[in-house]
Amino acid sequence: MQFKIVLTLFITLSFFTVHNAQENNHAEDSVMLRKIYSEALENGHAYEDLRSLCKDIGARLSGSVSAEMAVQWGYHRLKKYDFDTVYFQEVMVPHWERGTKENGYYQSKDGKITKVNILALGGSVPTNGIMEGEIVMFKNRDALLKANKKDVEGKIVFISQPMDQKMITTFSAYGACYPIRGLGAIDAAKLGAKAVIIRSLSLSEHDHPHTGTMQYEEGLKKIPAAALSTNDATALENLLNESKGKLTFYFEMDCKVLPDKKSHNVIAELKGSENPNNIITIGGHLDSWDIGEGAHDDGAGIVHSMEALRILKELNYKPKNTLRVVFFMNEENGNMGGKTYAKKVKASGEHHILAIESDRGGFSPRGFSVDGKQKHLDLIRSFEKLFKPYLIHHFEFGYGGVDIGPLKNEFEGIGLIGFVPDSQRYFDFHHNANDVFENVNKRELELGAGSLSGLLWLLDRYY
Amino acid sequence: MQFKIVLTLFITLSFFTVHNAQENNHAEDSVMLRKIYSEALENGHAYEDLRSLCKDIGARLSGSVSAEMAVQWGYHRLKKYDFDTVYFQEVMVPHWERGTKENGYYQSKDGKITKVNILALGGSVPTNGIMEGEIVMFKNRDALLKANKKDVEGKIVFISQPMDQKMITTFSAYGACYPIRGLGAIDAAKLGAKAVIIRSLSLSEHDHPHTGTMQYEEGLKKIPAAALSTNDATALENLLNESKGKLTFYFEMDCKVLPDKKSHNVIAELKGSENPNNIITIGGHLDSWDIGEGAHDDGAGIVHSMEALRILKELNYKPKNTLRVVFFMNEENGNMGGKTYAKKVKASGEHHILAIESDRGGFSPRGFSVDGKQKHLDLIRSFEKLFKPYLIHHFEFGYGGVDIGPLKNEFEGIGLIGFVPDSQRYFDFHHNANDVFENVNKRELELGAGSLSGLLWLLDRYY
Repeated sequence: MQFKIVLTLFITLSFFTVHNAQENNHAEDSVMLRKIYSEALENGHAYEDLRSLCKDIGARLSGSVSAEMAVQWGYHRLKKYDFDTVYFQEVMVPHWERGTKENGYYQSKDGKITKVNILALGGSVPTNGIMEGEIVMFKNRDALLKANKKDVEGKIVFISQPMDQKMITTFSAYGACYPIRGLGAIDAAKLGAKAVIIRSLSLSEHDHPHTGTMQYEEGLKKIPAAALSTNDATALENLLNESKGKLTFYFEMDCKVLPDKKSHNVIAELKGSENPNNIITIGGHLDSWDIGEGAHDDGAGIVHSMEALRILKELNYKPKNTLRVVFFMNEENGNMGGKTYAKKVKASGEHHILAIESDRGGFSPRGFSVDGKQKHLDLIRSFEKLFKPYLIHHFEFGYGGVDIGPLKNEFEGIGLIGFVPDSQRYFDFHHNANDVFENVNKRELELGAGSLSGLLWLLDRYY
Repeated sequence: MQFKIVLTLFITLSFFTVHNAQENNHAEDSVMLRKIYSEALENGHAYEDLRSLCKDIGARLSGSVSAEMAVQWGYHRLKKYDFDTVYFQEVMVPHWERGTKENGYYQSKDGKITKVNILALGGSVPTNGIMEGEIVMFKNRDALLKANKKDVEGKIVFISQPMDQKMITTFSAYGACYPIRGLGAIDAAKLGAKAVIIRSLSLSEHDHPHTGTMQYEEGLKKIPAAALSTNDATALENLLNESKGKLTFYFEMDCKVLPDKKSHNVIAELKGSENPNNIITIGGHLDSWDIGEGAHDDGAGIVHSMEALRILKELNYKPKNTLRVVFFMNEENGNMGGKTYAKKVKASGEHHILAIESDRGGFSPRGFSVDGKQKHLDLIRSFEKLFKPYLIHHFEFGYGGVDIGPLKNEFEGIGLIGFVPDSQRYFDFHHNANDVFENVNKRELELGAGSLSGLLWLLDRYY
């Protein structure tokens, strides 16, 4: 008992000592944080930068001429902001093209036809002319995995699995539903299907199908894979449930896989004044799907990262460590930018201590998720009080990001931090035609930039 | 020292006892809260109810036929949900009509004319034909208050004051800028101006002017008052700054004030099983401005409140206290619904213990603000852990709401609670043509309904 009393007192006293020291820094830090947010909101460049990326370039899938335009755009924007160094880093990227034909419809026994909004999944093989087949529907992936080959062979598999509306964080609902897109063509090919079509991964009902990566398995037949809009998928599901009759599906896609192509990550930095060899990166991905304008995914992350560094430079901050912005190429279909970056910086001996990624859209900021050690989370949580006036409240272990992920294998003890904005609207826009500049709110985007700039500054100061 | 040790131990032990008791309830409560949110997200009625209010009726300014349609709509929706009691409460409301003419332009010395997007402020007198006058611009209200009569007399005052972008909570920026609309006609009339036009209160640049209440002062000349869209205001300000020349403004408005009219609040309740005479109300306002569809303001609050009660009924919850939904009439230009309600329930001896209001839009929920005693805040904060999985983090003293405000004068010790959603997009839509159903996100709206239903349930259980 005595020991416990002493311990309790010790903890109590220690608490007050630490508390007071923090209070002093807190006052000073909160003044700087206010300046950072004010710069983001009053003189921000994020919104105009995003407008330019979305409207002057637009969609920018790896291997396309638009992606190369985006590389040049990124280099010259970073140059314009006059950072210490701006350079390219070569990356070999996959090259898949959608082609010009993407049409589909289904026909019931009485002859009635219904046109659908359909999109090839990224990486799909073409249909080579019009493909037709009887539709066999599965409520979800589990049902497909349990199916008999005789019920599927020679047919077109339709997986109608919706994202789970009751999950609060939409990325959890996406993660749970992702295998129907990523693995649907493998699952269906194993049962002898001739093609697979899925309900788009979206939480809202509309006419714009989504796209995204899918995989094939070595040794299995590569079958065409496509997504229907949520509206079309619901209508088709209802018809199949009502009629119990056979429906024939017809579709045509002339997408193709081409040889890998040379592209680039684009990098800029502010050199560290005390520890220039310790690098903190912040980044997003420059490529996007070929539909919409890649505004939230991940134009927002690109302008967030650039703006985070611009603000610190504008406020004449001299970093202790080297702060580096990285525009990664090819997150969407291969992550070759992230993988190449990690290998090259490891090989050249550039020591990475922390990495931040923004790839969850330009929505109202809620916080940060930490993929690292307890010390990383503790550090981020020590900023909680500072961030409270900016309505930032989420400081938890969680995912860092796809682009920065490979750094974990190369740098023991690195902390990866993912920016966490509000996720509710993300899957209205994700990988579909709605992901355009007009669907990004200026203030929400700017608050994200302010939050990331503030975090970058605090990490440089206290890590 | 000994005393402190004992005290520390006592607090420590007490903490663990309370903690354990709360843990047990916490487990049970979290199951119910999960059911409430799942009902809101999987079987929710809020979105379809809002669609109906916005599209089957639309804008519904007090005194208009649309407002009367909304009263009937509210009554029959509440009846449909089969609550214990549904009834009307008579309210006399002001009646102002916009009329059919609302046009304006300005002309520079070289003859060039520029048409503007202009809206009469609610309650403004008409221009009685085309009014013309030289424009005199003021950067903000303070500048106008300091002006000399000779510089203003006979002219049209233009107040170009923008909302402050650097404020994090947009309602604070609105509050700071509100006097240019509410008091601009008084300030300008005191200096002999013939009319006042203001920059719309909005945080984004677009072509849709906003409207809203304004005041006149007894004994002062009532001058026409209108708002220009933010785009038009910026263009006009730039032109005045550049040219320093004189600009003549021409505009016409045939709005009019008519005699007060009879209307109604609409009320429904679930009777309390233990304390039926203790009433907890939840509400929003049924009227809206006559522009747009009143989707966020305050269609969202109407369907939030109705849905909060519907969910509890659907889950077979038998409340201890009487839970009452109130659709208030005439929040926008008079608050006669709120004032009348408070007086009538006081007179009839209906004891109100708590009141909740949703009137800040249908955006992603962030928390609750409490206008009451410390005990009210402490109670709400005791729910913090329960609400954390739903990303609710704001539990602070703050504003309750306009409609429930008058209850404070009638019931000593009542706690008023305002629902606090994310505020960043609110002033893109507020009182302008963009406040339509399409600008409300289904999940964000439903999460708001779930949060309010959960709060209502917890308050009934623990107050």
